[in-house]
Amino acid sequence: MDEGRQTTEPSTGLQPGSTSQAAASILRPSSPVRIVSLLTDFGQADAYVGIMKAVILARAPRARLVDLTHEVPPHDIARAAFLLYTAAPYFPPGSVHLAVVDPGVGSRRRPIAIATERAFYVGPDNGLFTYVLARDPLRAAVELREPRFRLTPVSDTFHGRDIFAPAAAHLASGGELGDLGPPVSDLVRLPPLRLEVSGAAIQGAVLHADRFGNAITSIGPLAWEGEHLVLAAPGGPLRFSAASAVVEVGGERLRGIQHTYANAAPGALIALVGSHAHLEIALREGSAARYLNLGPGDPITIVYAP
Amino acid sequence: MDEGRQTTEPSTGLQPGSTSQAAASILRPSSPVRIVSLLTDFGQADAYVGIMKAVILARAPRARLVDLTHEVPPHDIARAAFLLYTAAPYFPPGSVHLAVVDPGVGSRRRPIAIATERAFYVGPDNGLFTYVLARDPLRAAVELREPRFRLTPVSDTFHGRDIFAPAAAHLASGGELGDLGPPVSDLVRLPPLRLEVSGAAIQGAVLHADRFGNAITSIGPLAWEGEHLVLAAPGGPLRFSAASAVVEVGGERLRGIQHTYANAAPGALIALVGSHAHLEIALREGSAARYLNLGPGDPITIVYAP
Amino acid sequence: MDEGRQTTEPSTGLQPGSTSQAAASILRPSSPVRIVSLLTDFGQADAYVGIMKAVILARAPRARLVDLTHEVPPHDIARAAFLLYTAAPYFPPGSVHLAVVDPGVGSRRRPIAIATERAFYVGPDNGLFTYVLARDPLRAAVELREPRFRLTPVSDTFHGRDIFAPAAAHLASGGELGDLGPPVSDLVRLPPLRLEVSGAAIQGAVLHADRFGNAITSIGPLAWEGEHLVLAAPGGPLRFSAASAVVEVGGERLRGIQHTYANAAPGALIALVGSHAHLEIALREGSAARYLNLGPGDPITIVYAP
Repeated sequence: MDEGRQTTEPSTGLQPGSTSQAAASILRPSSPVRIVSLLTDFGQADAYVGIMKAVILARAPRARLVDLTHEVPPHDIARAAFLLYTAAPYFPPGSVHLAVVDPGVGSRRRPIAIATERAFYVGPDNGLFTYVLARDPLRAAVELREPRFRLTPVSDTFHGRDIFAPAAAHLASGGELGDLGPPVSDLVRLPPLRLEVSGAAIQGAVLHADRFGNAITSIGPLAWEGEHLVLAAPGGPLRFSAASAVVEVGGERLRGIQHTYANAAPGALIALVGSHAHLEIALREGSAARYLNLGPGDPITIVYAP
Repeated sequence: MDEGRQTTEPSTGLQPGSTSQAAASILRPSSPVRIVSLLTDFGQADAYVGIMKAVILARAPRARLVDLTHEVPPHDIARAAFLLYTAAPYFPPGSVHLAVVDPGVGSRRRPIAIATERAFYVGPDNGLFTYVLARDPLRAAVELREPRFRLTPVSDTFHGRDIFAPAAAHLASGGELGDLGPPVSDLVRLPPLRLEVSGAAIQGAVLHADRFGNAITSIGPLAWEGEHLVLAAPGGPLRFSAASAVVEVGGERLRGIQHTYANAAPGALIALVGSHAHLEIALREGSAARYLNLGPGDPITIVYAP
Repeated sequence: MDEGRQTTEPSTGLQPGSTSQAAASILRPSSPVRIVSLLTDFGQADAYVGIMKAVILARAPRARLVDLTHEVPPHDIARAAFLLYTAAPYFPPGSVHLAVVDPGVGSRRRPIAIATERAFYVGPDNGLFTYVLARDPLRAAVELREPRFRLTPVSDTFHGRDIFAPAAAHLASGGELGDLGPPVSDLVRLPPLRLEVSGAAIQGAVLHADRFGNAITSIGPLAWEGEHLVLAAPGGPLRFSAASAVVEVGGERLRGIQHTYANAAPGALIALVGSHAHLEIALREGSAARYLNLGPGDPITIVYAP
């Protein structure tokens, strides 16, 4: 693996390493073919996603399209923001992330495009990019006003097709961010993921359940150092013993934080570090979220010893 | 945006503008890589769609594949035909649309491929292409009989794989329509979408609900002209005031046709022009189709004043 | 269709013809762009599949990605193995099949890559490749240990991203199997599909139901010879009359094995040869699996006359 490739992957948890090469790549005039990722709440029963792809390929015929998911629960901006945060670091530098969870379509919320050190983001200004921007610093943001990069006429109900897809296509074919419209600031941000450290307790919240019924939480990123865990907490790294930590969630107390699902017996609850480097609660061969009746916002605590 | 690109997009609602450039592009000898869109009722739990893609890429390695949807309710030809109608105009000229909703597979229904001014269509001759052909005139149609463009042996249960995918691959790699088989006429057509204008009323029907519970209707295409709407009715354009129109559906009377979802209060019903330029009934942050118990064929009326 | 293309398709049922050209293609130094198929139980509501694709494209930017399905029921290795078996023959030689149904992730089960005459397979060593290997002989298998072809750090919960995707990318960009790690033998195998011939009866089992409610069975591959069927049975080909065969399943006796769904009246049960060349039970315009209450492992018998 050469140096250039290393910059495409996070070195620890989800935190990218040096981004200087990534930025250089973005600015390179004859950039390679770019990826456009797509993340929506459109579902897959209608043709909405296919239509967006048609618009992108009509304007950027060589773009590579990758679906993140289209099954975000309708209008669940926070979930989309978290999924984008877990996925973006694995894309090559210069990728374009098109995210459309847009309950305010047709209202006064702004359509925007953002450049960071590593990537471009296109979508409504409603907080979708909050978590990626917490990790990957903003370089520039514009409002998507330029008629050349919109379909005609622009509908009031499907900006994914009429505004966001053409903007993503422009960026994917190497166009300048500044072509798309005037600079904007004061982007809308979601509240940060809940993460509080007090005394010997780390407090967070359940975010959502994944397909396997694993409850993903706001506590992270967590990295292994031997048998200790290091939490990238707001006040600085927090190091504690995984085996002696106690996780309190849904009325249960789980002793120890494990490496993987296979560390639990079938039918047993387990706390572990999930693939997104956040604390996760699983039930081996079952659904932890259903078993503990966990939903978004439910509290979770790690009581730890250094 | 240059002239060539403009032809890839509808100028008003779903009606394409000049198609002469599109036709020229189709006939151009060294055409760029072509898109194959896929629309089926195969679902995504089996490998059927992936198998069709394998067959296409084995024969047309540079084709770009775009899923429209595979979640058409089993055997629902009318719904597939409408989805194709809403999506096709956004694809670049020369795209190949492969549609397989095929309850008659293995019977005497004909497998066909069609060329229009803008695109190619491949699938069973059961009405799937009715609505696209109403907008994009037929140039030629053939029955897929040529053994070179079929797998061997042809199964009786999966023509998507054995007949339609190889035909789509042939067209996507720039092959001639006429290579695929002899000309056919008298294509099977569905009844037209219900759209009747009488006195001061426009009558139509609910088609289906989309993922958000929005009820899509047969009344369209509708285009905005300031605060008036123009319906492309069979007898000629019909212009009326959006604000003073009254929509009757599911026992409710909704005053005014709105621009977008955000014009309604949360929990309120709203009539609006959807992204496919058809009248749509929505419930802000809820499912209009469920709330009004609307299903395919249910009547809807606009009472309008010029 | 030229000779080279014929090798990309099965000549009878699912059995590939001559594979010598396929093998030559795999070994060709400047191979064309390769396809990576993806088969998982990750579902589509999370970003897991998109993340794997990002990792592949970051390392093999020209790879073509084809989803087989991601809706395998969680941890259902046998179903994934059968779907892969039905799909693999339709991919061009040299394709890379990435299959991740991995209940043992993070345990001692080995991550492997396999080369056969026709293709590459990448995934956990838990039996996923049992059925493809029964048809397409193993040439070499390695354990995925080489750090250059893993992300850093490797998580304990998502080897699809950290180990399997980078390995697939290496193979898709023309890399050598041997680069990925040391040779392994004694691959884990599932029990063979149930298929017993005794007297005038062929006995098998229901495997699963597809989206249409068709019950797919272990009895196959079956090929038509006029109005006779030829079963590729372990003891040699078995030829019998389709019309006089009697199929016993779920307490019903069905007379004759048909060519296609359209041979049954609406609402009638039918036994036919499905698109994967296995015996299948269908209910015209309904779900045979639900009607007969059929589940995996339920017995099915063909009583035949030569």
